[in-house]
Amino acid sequence: MFDLRWSASEKKTARSAYEQARESVLAELVTEFKARAAAVATPSDMWALEDYLRQRRQELDGIFDYRYSQLPLVFARLIREGHLDEARLVGLSEEKLEIIRGLLSR
Amino acid sequence: MFDLRWSASEKKTARSAYEQARESVLAELVTEFKARAAAVATPSDMWALEDYLRQRRQELDGIFDYRYSQLPLVFARLIREGHLDEARLVGLSEEKLEIIRGLLSR
Repeated sequence: MFDLRWSASEKKTARSAYEQARESVLAELVTEFKARAAAVATPSDMWALEDYLRQRRQELDGIFDYRYSQLPLVFARLIREGHLDEARLVGLSEEKLEIIRGLLSR
Repeated sequence: MFDLRWSASEKKTARSAYEQARESVLAELVTEFKARAAAVATPSDMWALEDYLRQRRQELDGIFDYRYSQLPLVFARLIREGHLDEARLVGLSEEKLEIIRGLLSR
């Protein structure tokens, strides 16, 4: 989607922001999962939670896509959903930051 | 697999034993699931538990098969695994009980 050049230092910044956001999303999901599991009282509650977890897993597999061509979209989405602070992206070129801001403003 | 005639009263006995065993298996799984979920500490623990639950669900879908042709096998398996007391099957014909015992002794 985006054909940009990423310098070695930009790749490092991107990887670090990406991994931190991923850990944040997963940690939140673990907390949510444990709370939901603690509230399970019946087999159907349990199957519903299994379904929910599978769905979230597929969703996360879709979001966390570390292809450079996809990263601006990934970062915009993570910022929008509150999993990434734009300040973590300092070090990326102004061009990339503008693309991300452009995606965010749509 | 088994071409036996089931009287109305045998069907009632079978259904009751089957449902009770099913509830027992599921209640046990819910308890196990909640204990495992409480012990989840990391995303990979969580995914492993999701995988385990899906596997158990498929296994249970395979075990609980209420076709009359399958019931002797189902009951033998449930007795073997401790989810059904043979005493719950009193009321089935001697022929059926012998088939089930035969399966259990194999």
